[in-house]
Amino acid sequence: MDAKETLSSGEPEGTFYPYRVVLDTSLFVNPDVRKSLGDTPTEALEAFLFLAAQIHILEFYMPPSIFEELLYFVEKDKIPEDLLVILHQKPPKKHELKCPAFLLYELIEDIRERVNKGLRIAEKAVRSVEKRSPDEIIQDLRRKYRDALREGIIDSKEDVDLLLLAMELDALLITADQGLIKWAEKLGIKWLFPEKFKDYLQGAIKRSGLLSGKTK
Amino acid sequence: MDAKETLSSGEPEGTFYPYRVVLDTSLFVNPDVRKSLGDTPTEALEAFLFLAAQIHILEFYMPPSIFEELLYFVEKDKIPEDLLVILHQKPPKKHELKCPAFLLYELIEDIRERVNKGLRIAEKAVRSVEKRSPDEIIQDLRRKYRDALREGIIDSKEDVDLLLLAMELDALLITADQGLIKWAEKLGIKWLFPEKFKDYLQGAIKRSGLLSGKTK
Repeated sequence: MDAKETLSSGEPEGTFYPYRVVLDTSLFVNPDVRKSLGDTPTEALEAFLFLAAQIHILEFYMPPSIFEELLYFVEKDKIPEDLLVILHQKPPKKHELKCPAFLLYELIEDIRERVNKGLRIAEKAVRSVEKRSPDEIIQDLRRKYRDALREGIIDSKEDVDLLLLAMELDALLITADQGLIKWAEKLGIKWLFPEKFKDYLQGAIKRSGLLSGKTK
Repeated sequence: MDAKETLSSGEPEGTFYPYRVVLDTSLFVNPDVRKSLGDTPTEALEAFLFLAAQIHILEFYMPPSIFEELLYFVEKDKIPEDLLVILHQKPPKKHELKCPAFLLYELIEDIRERVNKGLRIAEKAVRSVEKRSPDEIIQDLRRKYRDALREGIIDSKEDVDLLLLAMELDALLITADQGLIKWAEKLGIKWLFPEKFKDYLQGAIKRSGLLSGKTK
């Protein structure tokens, strides 16, 4: 990408900064993943901003659709205005980007399997009517059906936004969503184990310090 | 496409022959569509071959996956060997072709709607257990569920084969499948009202005659 440049002559040749990083809400919302950053989404986001403010070698991005999701989970009045400057909001250029056609086969194969799974779950629910009340069955059906049809699949506009933005920016995608990671693999998008997010930020702070030390 | 050439100097400039045409099985299998060609899939295919043999300005293609489907519906020993020469079998170059990324949004939106529809159908089935036996309900559920989840959607490897082959060859796609027609529209693929298939072949015969008369 043309906006990248070499920050320091001490780095090996071919190392260009800033690196771009695309973040998913799951990093702040999923309790297992955010726990190293904070007990609540708000705390986790604050901790991220505190760390990110010290990093000069990374640019953080989030599609506006995902940013909206994030704001829904945090206490907005507690979040410093830094957020808007540190975390860039950018939608992907969806009418310019192309994706390899063989992915259509994979997506459709994936959907077929899930649709069949959904039907089997529905059949089982009908067969279980003698044991439980319709209301109980339907509650159970909804949960199982949604789990079966959504697990490990890209199933929303927001998911596509994340993948395409990472593709467009040649960025590192950080998410706790297994469906997204699976698709990042298919598309050759860089991704990070989400539980390493804090380590990654701390590593970047260290490196930022070293680099600015060298260029002084 | 580089294989195209001008057959006749009598045609307006920019008219290149042969045109490529990609055919779907539905033309021979769907009773409403094939009726102008024959009463059975076998008769319809024979009638097509009889007409196609007289056409010099069109090249007919079918992905092997669709060709296999077709053979399943016809009496193979009645079909002249012509078939293999007149109807070219070619898979799309699925690892070279690209498709516009915004289509991912449309496909995923489409799937979401259908998945929700499927769940509503399943819930209704569970609620109807007081009136009918589970076996009856499940039979009905299967039909409704499949209809809801498959109608107007590209839902198989074969569908993707047809679309990508038409895209690759810049060909005219002829199919009776509304899902495919909807996607041909999105992708800018030429398509023909399937009930006009026989008229189109007859028009091409007439034009083939005119052109060979002129070039004699």
